[in-house]
Amino acid sequence: MDPPAPTPFVDDLRAALGDDAVDVTAATRERYGRNRLPLGDRLPLLVVYPDNTAAVQSTVRLANRHGVALYPVSTGENSGLGLRSPSHRSCAVVDLGARMNRILGVDEVLCTAELEPGVSYQQLYDELERRGHPLMLDTTSGPPDGGIVGNTLDKGAGYTPYFDHFGMSCGLEVVLGDGRVLRTADGALPGSRTWHLGKYGYGPFLDGLFVQSNFGIVTRLGVWLMPRPPVIRTFFFLYPDDDDLVEIMERVRPLKLSNAVPTLLKVTSDLYGLGTVTRYPTARSGGVTPLPDALRRELREEHGLGAWCVSGALYGATEESIAPALARVRAHFEASGRARYVSHEEALEHPAHRIHVDTFSGRPTRQELGLLEWRAGGGAAWFLPATPVVGAIAREHQRLSRRILAEHGFEYVVELVCGPRLARALHLILFDRRDPDEAARARDCYRALAAAYAAAGYPVSRAPLDFQAEAMTRLDTFPEVCASLKHALDPGGVLAPGRYGIE
Amino acid sequence: MDPPAPTPFVDDLRAALGDDAVDVTAATRERYGRNRLPLGDRLPLLVVYPDNTAAVQSTVRLANRHGVALYPVSTGENSGLGLRSPSHRSCAVVDLGARMNRILGVDEVLCTAELEPGVSYQQLYDELERRGHPLMLDTTSGPPDGGIVGNTLDKGAGYTPYFDHFGMSCGLEVVLGDGRVLRTADGALPGSRTWHLGKYGYGPFLDGLFVQSNFGIVTRLGVWLMPRPPVIRTFFFLYPDDDDLVEIMERVRPLKLSNAVPTLLKVTSDLYGLGTVTRYPTARSGGVTPLPDALRRELREEHGLGAWCVSGALYGATEESIAPALARVRAHFEASGRARYVSHEEALEHPAHRIHVDTFSGRPTRQELGLLEWRAGGGAAWFLPATPVVGAIAREHQRLSRRILAEHGFEYVVELVCGPRLARALHLILFDRRDPDEAARARDCYRALAAAYAAAGYPVSRAPLDFQAEAMTRLDTFPEVCASLKHALDPGGVLAPGRYGIE
Repeated sequence: MDPPAPTPFVDDLRAALGDDAVDVTAATRERYGRNRLPLGDRLPLLVVYPDNTAAVQSTVRLANRHGVALYPVSTGENSGLGLRSPSHRSCAVVDLGARMNRILGVDEVLCTAELEPGVSYQQLYDELERRGHPLMLDTTSGPPDGGIVGNTLDKGAGYTPYFDHFGMSCGLEVVLGDGRVLRTADGALPGSRTWHLGKYGYGPFLDGLFVQSNFGIVTRLGVWLMPRPPVIRTFFFLYPDDDDLVEIMERVRPLKLSNAVPTLLKVTSDLYGLGTVTRYPTARSGGVTPLPDALRRELREEHGLGAWCVSGALYGATEESIAPALARVRAHFEASGRARYVSHEEALEHPAHRIHVDTFSGRPTRQELGLLEWRAGGGAAWFLPATPVVGAIAREHQRLSRRILAEHGFEYVVELVCGPRLARALHLILFDRRDPDEAARARDCYRALAAAYAAAGYPVSRAPLDFQAEAMTRLDTFPEVCASLKHALDPGGVLAPGRYGIE
Repeated sequence: MDPPAPTPFVDDLRAALGDDAVDVTAATRERYGRNRLPLGDRLPLLVVYPDNTAAVQSTVRLANRHGVALYPVSTGENSGLGLRSPSHRSCAVVDLGARMNRILGVDEVLCTAELEPGVSYQQLYDELERRGHPLMLDTTSGPPDGGIVGNTLDKGAGYTPYFDHFGMSCGLEVVLGDGRVLRTADGALPGSRTWHLGKYGYGPFLDGLFVQSNFGIVTRLGVWLMPRPPVIRTFFFLYPDDDDLVEIMERVRPLKLSNAVPTLLKVTSDLYGLGTVTRYPTARSGGVTPLPDALRRELREEHGLGAWCVSGALYGATEESIAPALARVRAHFEASGRARYVSHEEALEHPAHRIHVDTFSGRPTRQELGLLEWRAGGGAAWFLPATPVVGAIAREHQRLSRRILAEHGFEYVVELVCGPRLARALHLILFDRRDPDEAARARDCYRALAAAYAAAGYPVSRAPLDFQAEAMTRLDTFPEVCASLKHALDPGGVLAPGRYGIE
């Protein structure tokens, strides 16, 4: 078992925050240490539940005094990336989700919200529903209980025009590693009325320091919301072959560059869709893994999926005002004769497509989480490089990924979420975590993928806890600069040592 | 006269960069020290002309060795903000515009360009013209010779969907104050193929550190470009009274929040338009300043301008595809009966409106610069707060600005450039810089405006050199954090001490 919680720190924390704000029990530590990654669970020393910014400051100051490292989490719902597990075992998890989960304000005129770190996508959706949906949020396809602030700070993204969660955030409050409280951008002016309206403020724009790092604990964030479009119409095009990806990417790029489609375009592989509605066909495959291609083809036909499914949505005041744009999109994708169109109405009846209707409409969904259970044993790790929206490059990336995944005994479960220039290439490595050999293969597979993509010039944009440090070591000068910044903002090194490879 | 250039530094610089890369002549120092601001010119010690990143590194290292401060400028064309003048007189200006002005690449497929700091708007426009205009840039309404990198790093902006120059930049190379060279975002991976495609990279997003600061010298920048829309149609609405601003802002907000108009919407005051086509009517006013209201009304009628002019543009594949959206915009602004519509064709014939046609079409223009000559004597200072796009707030801001400007003897020369939530409220204080009393009033006027807006909760987003330090002192904790970062990245304090109030 791990070392016991350091008592003087716990005593001081309890004195400052209250007895019930600190939990050192084995059950809690186990719960917070659990994750789905190949390298195993990572139990924290203890868990702290601050209720407000001052309590976070006290926690940080005590951590400095006692030399104990803190690992802040908001809702900790990032399955396949680490959940609530700290980078190092000798950390106290600071759970901001438990008590700091208030929606501090919604401005229906200027379309903003002010949030504490624990506010979930479902919670904000429910609040907007209570108000009659004047506004629409951009949600992930991950758990509805996922936190908006945590996702934003990990550079998570959604699918609507507000997909870029960091880009659509505006002004944050952060407790630095030395205990100072900073309000960024226009929030630096006492009494500011534009904190969550103007993104960049005066002087350097510092918000970016607090994404994927360990320089501070964000305690409040402004986010921008869209007025809900009166009419949302999704569209789908199914392509029959893996190699159709080349044509797809060439068709997607001009639509996004001209903004003819306001949402991102998802390009979803067969198994990424199938995994949301079915499980690995162990009996039909005779226990063989990875899934044979012939069986993959059978399954996608049975479930009405293509090798690739392209989806997106149009927004407008009326059905009629959308119709010409929809006709143009159809003509564009149907030109080569390879795509089969699926309408919004048909998609509503198909659980795999329904996920896309929901995400393009700002509705949290649980359906995509089914993917995590494709293979028994619950192991999952996201590999997240980006692919330029260019057919020839996407073809090379598909080949590379399929080869490496197959060599390690895993399926190609990928969704390319396409903007005008880059697609986030969401690769999900699914494995039986109870089987040490399979977990080791998952680890090796991630490493092989990351190494191959980096060698080809394609870095990852986000990494599971197990592989964060490794990705940082590939970068030039950047790690040293991060170390300089760490020393400037967290001289005691108490915040999340090792997170994203920054010690 | 100022102290002579420190010889050992000059000798070392010449040995490292070549004799002609250093200029210590009085004429050059005077030229670089000149500006249009109230507090006078600021001559540098000397001027350095590096040719590449390694030369910038050498310059920075020598500055550290000799304890000489550097003040980097690109094209230095920011009239009314400081031009090439350094914050302190004891600086050596590093002119990146003279030799580091290469367009390093244009990617017509993924719509990006890679630029050195000296590349001007006109230069990139000319290059795109040479290529047959496959792409469109977003330009300022300032000098065509203004630098794209300098504008981006000062948080400058334009008017098209790519108006946010920092937001539409992607990946930079920077020489830090300690001489290290950092490539940000995906550029941190050696051999990266996505440096100018994916904005945020891995780990903390550091690009924001290098805007409005003095932590590094940016030597290369990626920028995103739009595919040129086949058809661009501007529209204009003239409103008769100053108080129509309330209605205007209420009409602008929903159009921008729903993105019914893809460009920003400009809301231009009478004198901001008039000043581009005429001079202060000294004879007709009998020498009186500020301009009497009755004469202002006469002038705007003579020149076919309203009290306010709203302008924007629609983009599309054909005239026909734009027509329904244009009809909706007209119905929206004409509903109250107060606005007079001016068509794209009419605007082409009107020099004040023509500025807007050009800027919404990505064409650099010299016409707006005429404004700087409204009053004789060439003094100009921008006051740049932001106003929420809410009628009632805009009314209060207009009253406040008109009162303070009039009290100091100046006109209200303002353009509100409106996004969905905030308008950049461009106030231009124009004064006779040869008259010490008028220059002192301009200084006091700026300070009174800045103080009044800050007291009401509205910070500035950008400031003239003369007033940068003052704006920083109004902020809470932010200045100390900037000082920590300065120490981390420029421990010798050699880069632009005092810029944006960071020593």
